[in-house]
Amino acid sequence: MNSIPTAPPSGFRDFLPESCALRTRAVEKVSAVYRSFGFAQIATSAVEDLAVLLGKGGGENEKLIFKILKRGDKLEAALAAKEDPADLGLRFDLTLPLARYYSKNKGTLPNPFKAFQIGPVWRAERAQKGRYREFYQCDADIIGSDSPACEVEVISALMAAFEVMGVEAPQVVLNDRVILFALLDAAGVPQDKRGGTCVLLDKLDKVERAQIVTELTELLGPGPAQALEKSIIDGDKISVAPEALARLEWIRETLKTTAGIEARVSPSLIRGFDYYTGPVFEFRSPKLSGSLGGGGRYDKLTEKFGGAPVPACGASIGFERLMLLLEEDPAAAKAGGPDFCMTVFSEELRAQSLKLAARLRQAGKTVDVYPGKAKLGTQFKYADAKRAARVLVLGPDEAAAGVVNVKELATGKEEKVALETLL
Amino acid sequence: MNSIPTAPPSGFRDFLPESCALRTRAVEKVSAVYRSFGFAQIATSAVEDLAVLLGKGGGENEKLIFKILKRGDKLEAALAAKEDPADLGLRFDLTLPLARYYSKNKGTLPNPFKAFQIGPVWRAERAQKGRYREFYQCDADIIGSDSPACEVEVISALMAAFEVMGVEAPQVVLNDRVILFALLDAAGVPQDKRGGTCVLLDKLDKVERAQIVTELTELLGPGPAQALEKSIIDGDKISVAPEALARLEWIRETLKTTAGIEARVSPSLIRGFDYYTGPVFEFRSPKLSGSLGGGGRYDKLTEKFGGAPVPACGASIGFERLMLLLEEDPAAAKAGGPDFCMTVFSEELRAQSLKLAARLRQAGKTVDVYPGKAKLGTQFKYADAKRAARVLVLGPDEAAAGVVNVKELATGKEEKVALETLL
Repeated sequence: MNSIPTAPPSGFRDFLPESCALRTRAVEKVSAVYRSFGFAQIATSAVEDLAVLLGKGGGENEKLIFKILKRGDKLEAALAAKEDPADLGLRFDLTLPLARYYSKNKGTLPNPFKAFQIGPVWRAERAQKGRYREFYQCDADIIGSDSPACEVEVISALMAAFEVMGVEAPQVVLNDRVILFALLDAAGVPQDKRGGTCVLLDKLDKVERAQIVTELTELLGPGPAQALEKSIIDGDKISVAPEALARLEWIRETLKTTAGIEARVSPSLIRGFDYYTGPVFEFRSPKLSGSLGGGGRYDKLTEKFGGAPVPACGASIGFERLMLLLEEDPAAAKAGGPDFCMTVFSEELRAQSLKLAARLRQAGKTVDVYPGKAKLGTQFKYADAKRAARVLVLGPDEAAAGVVNVKELATGKEEKVALETLL
Repeated sequence: MNSIPTAPPSGFRDFLPESCALRTRAVEKVSAVYRSFGFAQIATSAVEDLAVLLGKGGGENEKLIFKILKRGDKLEAALAAKEDPADLGLRFDLTLPLARYYSKNKGTLPNPFKAFQIGPVWRAERAQKGRYREFYQCDADIIGSDSPACEVEVISALMAAFEVMGVEAPQVVLNDRVILFALLDAAGVPQDKRGGTCVLLDKLDKVERAQIVTELTELLGPGPAQALEKSIIDGDKISVAPEALARLEWIRETLKTTAGIEARVSPSLIRGFDYYTGPVFEFRSPKLSGSLGGGGRYDKLTEKFGGAPVPACGASIGFERLMLLLEEDPAAAKAGGPDFCMTVFSEELRAQSLKLAARLRQAGKTVDVYPGKAKLGTQFKYADAKRAARVLVLGPDEAAAGVVNVKELATGKEEKVALETLL
């Protein structure tokens, strides 16, 4: 009887070789693009003190945190006293750890600090198709500058990453929290209904417009709902927050003139996180519903860790959604196998086979040697399963003649090649 | 008042840009070596069901697991019923998840399956200098073959990785669990004292030999202790387990003839994990006490997940110890900065500066653009902090003349270069 599961826990994943190779190549490509923009890679701990993750009024986030049990005597004491049995938790994004990291290390970091971070985050959400409890984020942030040039740089870096990854026609949508809140104020939305109103507006992409307007009317009454329909849903020009409007226009224009990026302003773009204070943006693909990533300005987040607030702006690639797009592309998904699979003809010839493999590796080739003893037919099947480009056979005749038999698996073409020629 | 910590939890670490760059390069280099030997990269979930991590008689490991609290109603119910409030845990090594992964996916994997895995593992050990609660492992394994050629392949791959990483004169030490247990039997060590005896023998590197012998005598009496002193500590030739001895000798000899690796057999090498069933090995550096990594054959581990046992052999690089060695090497530790730091002379010239940066990036260069507005002096200090190789200034005169001012930071050499020449 076996009751030990062989699948990972619900919402968690293992990756088969081909899928893993695709992910590794994607991480390397995105890293290279971020680096080319002058972002320096950092890494933060996967585990954080709960005090960092929860902070003031954790609310929604608190429910999503995987909490880690206290250990030993502390656990006993907490359980006996009916206190929180947890003291640590898994990070649920890379931005909060970055703010902590910056607060700790700012004295030794360049100013402004351009950082990128790629790694897993964990959220205890209900597992469903395409939504995982462990997933990667690829963040790029600039901390220490309030210039809208940061938005241009961050958006340009992400667009360059999408381009390198072969994403077709990614789109940028822009908005500004300052403008959004000013429009809510102008429409007469009371402070305590801002949150609910934003939740409704955020559904504009997924739900019929008429439905949203009905729900807004139920929540706010007909006056504010009509005003919001005009200003936010239809995007009629209304003069609120002129400085924020000018900043957003500068970002849109500069993206166009410097990088040829045609961004679209959408007054209803929300982006979920509470910590955004200014421009927010989102990346979309015509091939996917939802977003490929997004970000914004968060000028207050470092306040949480004491000291003066430091202006900051960053964005995150939704890595798993990017992988969904890439996996649809057979060319991208096809992982290359080794250059050669070296068979082992007999125990007597094993050492010579291993030596040949070693010399090919020294010449920069990837060479799999069949591990173990098996008939040549079995070894050829193995080479096939490994997607090797060529299979090498070094039998007694070949060894005596100083040659090796090379078979190209794609064509079946076979020839004897002198060892020196091969190397 | 600020009570939210800015440091990661005790035993956990953040990585500054230079250190992070060093780690990323090391991971990429080790990956490339493993790949060149035909190992395919896989990834497993960071989080495992506790049933997987604990299994039968978890014992020592159980104490080291970071356990994750159940969520929602399940947590309430568990606390009320005084049941285990945890259902998941962080993986403490990469071998057990690999065995689970293989058991689940063996039908679709090549056979034998050569896999490598690089990633963090977590152990709730007392934090101390050089010992962390979150650390990387780099594992290479071959599952599905009982040939000692697997040991040769795995050991050769790790030695090649050490070579690429610039580790000086790494040494391989070999032993076999079958020989070890046969020697314990021959010396008359009773079954129930095997564990305690191994714990003592494992300290031979750190504790005086006389002290070990005294403690063995206390544990086993003078007869067995003297026998062990002869056979295991002095390594006198004693004919036990002839097949295992022949296999170990074949591995030693084949490492030498095929890869020029001079391995040493040590009858007292233990390697901690319970799951080893045959040859075990360890990698050492004359510059470090303790090991750089190790591994062995574990032919029974997949049994845990049901089905027939599958022979397996693997090894792990102790990544954090490798980093300790590399950080001592100033050449290796020095992370290169961007090729260029592009300054922004004025708002009017920002677009032109960003365009130049974009074109340089397209030409394969890494280019940091100063994010924000600041005097040129401040921007030069920033370029210095980023370790940029060259600083570019595009002022009104340069723009009019179609040139850019290039300053090499290492030499202070400055010259005006035509834009087309630079590109």
